[in-house]
Amino acid sequence: MFRDMLEEVVQSTPGGLGAVLMGYDGIAIDEYRLDSSGPDLQMLAIEYANVLKEMTRMTDVLDTGHLEEVTVKTEEFFFVLRSVNEEYFMVLTIARSGNPGKGRYLMLKRVPQLNEELS
Amino acid sequence: MFRDMLEEVVQSTPGGLGAVLMGYDGIAIDEYRLDSSGPDLQMLAIEYANVLKEMTRMTDVLDTGHLEEVTVKTEEFFFVLRSVNEEYFMVLTIARSGNPGKGRYLMLKRVPQLNEELS
Repeated sequence: MFRDMLEEVVQSTPGGLGAVLMGYDGIAIDEYRLDSSGPDLQMLAIEYANVLKEMTRMTDVLDTGHLEEVTVKTEEFFFVLRSVNEEYFMVLTIARSGNPGKGRYLMLKRVPQLNEELS
Repeated sequence: MFRDMLEEVVQSTPGGLGAVLMGYDGIAIDEYRLDSSGPDLQMLAIEYANVLKEMTRMTDVLDTGHLEEVTVKTEEFFFVLRSVNEEYFMVLTIARSGNPGKGRYLMLKRVPQLNEELS
């Protein structure tokens, strides 16, 4: 079920390359890759788990409200990171020619369902 | 000159609250705040300097190309972080009712000029 959801998000996002659902402890629940191109999803998500933990600590310190979403733009990719709940998050990898806005929307729409399944 | 540029970006972004130009070493060059609302810009930029350094290290490890921009969405704010060069970055704080897309565009447009002034 998680894999189907990840696949749907990747396939419906223009430029979508892969998505992973992962715990903040760095252990992945499931992933979907369009093909073998793009960065290693597991390695990427483990690195992002650390960054998100640091950012969550920071938003608490700065009192700016709960962290919901982070969009990262590099020379080659967009990465959309979406918090699902306090234990899990999703990362979507998109080509630079793709549409991160659509990816963000699709991930946001799936949060309530994911939350239900994960609790 | 930096303050005028920061003021222009904040004033031209719907929901813009403040902007700061800062070194990755955590030392600010200049800042502009619309009023005293919103989080402390210096404290925020120091925290984000650490996150950006960690993300730059990570994008190098993952070989995903140079880090250009990060957009953070919390319950209360958007934060747009834009790398200017290897030494400096900008942070723009926007209300959740604002337009981070416009802010991103305005910051991107000012990078070449900033680069020239800073080198």
